[in-house]
Amino acid sequence: MKYEKHVFICTNDKVAPKKCCGSERGMILVNLFKEKMKEKGLNKTMRAQKTGCLDVCAFGPGMVVYPEGVFYGNVTPEDVDEIIESHLENGIPVERLRLPE
Amino acid sequence: MKYEKHVFICTNDKVAPKKCCGSERGMILVNLFKEKMKEKGLNKTMRAQKTGCLDVCAFGPGMVVYPEGVFYGNVTPEDVDEIIESHLENGIPVERLRLPE
Repeated sequence: MKYEKHVFICTNDKVAPKKCCGSERGMILVNLFKEKMKEKGLNKTMRAQKTGCLDVCAFGPGMVVYPEGVFYGNVTPEDVDEIIESHLENGIPVERLRLPE
Repeated sequence: MKYEKHVFICTNDKVAPKKCCGSERGMILVNLFKEKMKEKGLNKTMRAQKTGCLDVCAFGPGMVVYPEGVFYGNVTPEDVDEIIESHLENGIPVERLRLPE
């Protein structure tokens, strides 16, 4: 496994009024994850990046963490620290943001 | 796990002359995977989609299949059938295209 955790964050745009993650909101999250993971030195073994539509549009902004395949929805910039500390560093998914499978 | 197999294909563009997957070559692969997976009815339990840079630029076009985290490089349209049949349908990675971890 090249990455212990590989985080994909939707930065897709769909035509309004379809509810959607949106590139702008998604990129704020991507940049926050990258920056904070680098600060903690996690960027050597983990990666966060933008991705296309994850098919969880109604719950956007959406993201998924692999290899475990945990999907999160309605993620805000205020949630980033918790996801990094709880899930990426300690392996405990953030249940309040988790989407049903 | 929402998807039995989740395929992320790089469609990133970098400034030449940096070697890179490239959006055009990547999108050809994304569309081929989507089309062929739909034909086989795999699109109900699996997903192929575009993604940003996977950090395997020198071996582009690159892609990764999760949850197992198998990376492939130098993927051409001619390889799509084999990856779908061998890896996605039968769980056997295509070793000749696999990137070292």
